[in-house]
Amino acid sequence: MGDSKSDGGSPIHRDLPVAIHSQISDGFRARIASGEWPAHYRLKSEPDLAAELGVSRGTLRRALTTLIDEGLLRQVRGRGTFVTSTMIEPAIAQKLSTLSEDFSSQGIETTTRVISCELIDPPRPVAALLEVPAGGSVMKLVRLRSTEQGPVAFLFNYVRTDFAPGIEDVDFASTSLFGTLEGRYGLRISSARRTFSAQAAEGEVAAQLDIPEGAPVQYLEQVTYLANGRPIEYSDVWIHSGRLRVTSMLSRR
Amino acid sequence: MGDSKSDGGSPIHRDLPVAIHSQISDGFRARIASGEWPAHYRLKSEPDLAAELGVSRGTLRRALTTLIDEGLLRQVRGRGTFVTSTMIEPAIAQKLSTLSEDFSSQGIETTTRVISCELIDPPRPVAALLEVPAGGSVMKLVRLRSTEQGPVAFLFNYVRTDFAPGIEDVDFASTSLFGTLEGRYGLRISSARRTFSAQAAEGEVAAQLDIPEGAPVQYLEQVTYLANGRPIEYSDVWIHSGRLRVTSMLSRR
Repeated sequence: MGDSKSDGGSPIHRDLPVAIHSQISDGFRARIASGEWPAHYRLKSEPDLAAELGVSRGTLRRALTTLIDEGLLRQVRGRGTFVTSTMIEPAIAQKLSTLSEDFSSQGIETTTRVISCELIDPPRPVAALLEVPAGGSVMKLVRLRSTEQGPVAFLFNYVRTDFAPGIEDVDFASTSLFGTLEGRYGLRISSARRTFSAQAAEGEVAAQLDIPEGAPVQYLEQVTYLANGRPIEYSDVWIHSGRLRVTSMLSRR
Repeated sequence: MGDSKSDGGSPIHRDLPVAIHSQISDGFRARIASGEWPAHYRLKSEPDLAAELGVSRGTLRRALTTLIDEGLLRQVRGRGTFVTSTMIEPAIAQKLSTLSEDFSSQGIETTTRVISCELIDPPRPVAALLEVPAGGSVMKLVRLRSTEQGPVAFLFNYVRTDFAPGIEDVDFASTSLFGTLEGRYGLRISSARRTFSAQAAEGEVAAQLDIPEGAPVQYLEQVTYLANGRPIEYSDVWIHSGRLRVTSMLSRR
């Protein structure tokens, strides 16, 4: 107990007028705040921690419950107790889910602002990747997604309208794009290629994400394909790296 | 033929002293160079392209073969002919492969320079994530990977030595880290959490990757676990986004 890397935090003072479970939760909270216990850190098992601190498991549990209620720790059945990440960590590099799907499955509340939604003659590289013939138009949808912390993602989506006529009239402030394509138009979204790189924020990207010009921003480019092999959607997405980290849980085999 | 978005490129001139297949390959090459046909663009089918250009399939094939030999196009059996990406696009967001494994499976030649390899008292967040007890040491391995274009990735790996005693004596200029852990030490690497974000390059990162201070760099943080659930390795990796893009091919279901 009390050595530089024990899990126990500061020693317990039984003569202080502060409940022991509060001393424990205060110590753990300080370690999380200092970064000594980083996001995803797994605490020692409850019996080991209780023994190390010289307290009962009931006292330890009370301290853990306090921190779980505060959102600093979370327990995963069969795996243990972990430090919660303060970052939104969507698994969009690993699964073909959308940011909005990932947010709602994690219980994160987001708001979406539709900045523009119109039919356009697509830029030529986009027309090529979407296999849009000469004179074809696509819907260009520009949105900003925010959490209570502020803007997290600025999205440009280009969608073929031959497979989804009238889609430009949908209110995308309250409806998801993939949901509309799959639900309303009955399209079978099958696969996508996503690439990730770092860019310097410029112009509208910096302004919308509320970061300085030139600051690093996570850029994601995507082409989405239907089950019949035809491309349906191309997107450019800029992500605020200070608020959202793309995460993959990967298996070796 | 000749309209602004046909796949045919410039019209064929049968009266020019340039072979028709060369006119076709020149036209396609110009579209690739201009970005009008971006990386991963799928060309129309050979029968459609030949009909549009008004040439035989044999002539078209000869033009395609020229561009395939130049590395500008590639054919994927059953899927078609695609514009090659000039970027290295490892699937490290999708698979728990390492950069070196991904490079060698794609036939990309890389060199590795070991900048340092030593036993250290780990930084506390690293010790916590690796579950290294007080006083434990880890191997810190610092490497720079380059292709013929220049540096592409600067890597810090922290490896638990209790599972791999003596690993600090391995020559990592010629040996892969995962290969050593799995082959020499018989460890079963099972899973990893990888997070991706954009950072501004600073100090040693900027210097090693040969990019200006403050320029955007793709940052990857990873914790790797063995089949027994114990963490074995933590890494920080900084990727030159101008030379390498992290790519995922994802399925919806």
